[in-house]
Amino acid sequence: MEQGAEFVITRITENGNVALEDRVTRERPLTILLNHRELVTLLCSPDQLEALAVGFLASEGFVSRKEDIEMLTVDARRGIVRVATHHAPEFAEEFVFKRFITTGCGRGATFYSPTDAQADLRVTAQLAVAPAVIFTLVKEFQRRSETYRATGGVHSAALCDATRILLFAEDIGRHNAIDKIFGQCLLENQPTAGLMLITSGRISSEILLKVARRNVPVIVSKSAPTDLGVTLAEQLGITLVGFVRGQRMNVYTHPHRIVS
Amino acid sequence: MEQGAEFVITRITENGNVALEDRVTRERPLTILLNHRELVTLLCSPDQLEALAVGFLASEGFVSRKEDIEMLTVDARRGIVRVATHHAPEFAEEFVFKRFITTGCGRGATFYSPTDAQADLRVTAQLAVAPAVIFTLVKEFQRRSETYRATGGVHSAALCDATRILLFAEDIGRHNAIDKIFGQCLLENQPTAGLMLITSGRISSEILLKVARRNVPVIVSKSAPTDLGVTLAEQLGITLVGFVRGQRMNVYTHPHRIVS
Repeated sequence: MEQGAEFVITRITENGNVALEDRVTRERPLTILLNHRELVTLLCSPDQLEALAVGFLASEGFVSRKEDIEMLTVDARRGIVRVATHHAPEFAEEFVFKRFITTGCGRGATFYSPTDAQADLRVTAQLAVAPAVIFTLVKEFQRRSETYRATGGVHSAALCDATRILLFAEDIGRHNAIDKIFGQCLLENQPTAGLMLITSGRISSEILLKVARRNVPVIVSKSAPTDLGVTLAEQLGITLVGFVRGQRMNVYTHPHRIVS
Repeated sequence: MEQGAEFVITRITENGNVALEDRVTRERPLTILLNHRELVTLLCSPDQLEALAVGFLASEGFVSRKEDIEMLTVDARRGIVRVATHHAPEFAEEFVFKRFITTGCGRGATFYSPTDAQADLRVTAQLAVAPAVIFTLVKEFQRRSETYRATGGVHSAALCDATRILLFAEDIGRHNAIDKIFGQCLLENQPTAGLMLITSGRISSEILLKVARRNVPVIVSKSAPTDLGVTLAEQLGITLVGFVRGQRMNVYTHPHRIVS
């Protein structure tokens, strides 16, 4: 990920004011046109635009595998991704008006109701992971969050197996970072079932729906979950791990997958 | 704000596993019906629902003063706010499809394009505030973020004059916390022009549009801005202060309002 835009700022300290150059993380609009129709404009970190668009479409249920995508073009300069699918979804007015605005950084709309969606989404994939591995992976995850260290203010996500980080993504939005991961997997036909996702952000309800759609049985964060996140994790059969800090963590649901 | 839901969790440390009760911050859907039509469902911390709904409508440009609201009812149990306005906005299909999905926690859709909106929004209100006051107010702001300390994972916002905090709100979404502040102001006919807003979250583009609509000339955060946030602040005439930590801060734009 690129290292941000430079601005001349005024830094104020006890010793007075000084003008200096400072790097600030980039934010750009990305408009997704689905089957020639404007679906959504995301505000995002402008990298991995193809993966972000596909991951968004997958999270919202418009595509579920690479073969669903007939055509995909990226106009990075203008911030436009055009996608054509083989099975054009219906844009009923009801559907559009029922957008669900989420708590999430980098995402606002999920195009379904959490309660409607639950029945089909129960995660059946298994995974056994040791606490020591989670501590090590989260440490590695934080080490790799380079943009955050450089400019502040971006979220990260990583997909892991029981031993190592397989994919890593960053974005100003915590949802976008996750969608970049899942979009890349979909584009490369890489299975996600039975893997573990680490996120830098809070674990709220729509994050659970996102990982459930990819059959990911373990979600890990150094941050807190919400109560709706915990309730959904319980219902969806997902192991929710929060507050991973140093050698401590809280397992909120389905602790049987965390094995010493 | 209430202190969250209790769950029995497994805490894993070097000393092994222990089951204990833990508080988790609440997350609930809030559906806003505007003139008998379902406008949006927010995921939010379930307090100040009236202020949140009105603040959302104000941020999106549906209302601009209390007199615009003909009727407002809150069904807290079902998570529904019904609002009727004197001047019913048009729900053209174009308008609905052009929703802008933001980076923000707790908000996804802003119903206009940032570039379209800029011309009318330039902030003319003045305010002169000393660095020492900002340091003190941010310290007080962090002290008051009680829910964060209790359960982790909520954002805060505060409206201040040049000497003290006037209003304070918390939400799992950083946008929601700001909308609760501005919604309360609108409901109580409290002017916001010339005041200062403190937020716990990143300052991205749509936060700038939100404060510009309320003629708030100074926005302050302990976190980072995005480059689009800085560019908009410059264009909108807003003083953007980031990374307020201890006795240091970065002034990204219009530093003339920060006077020792």
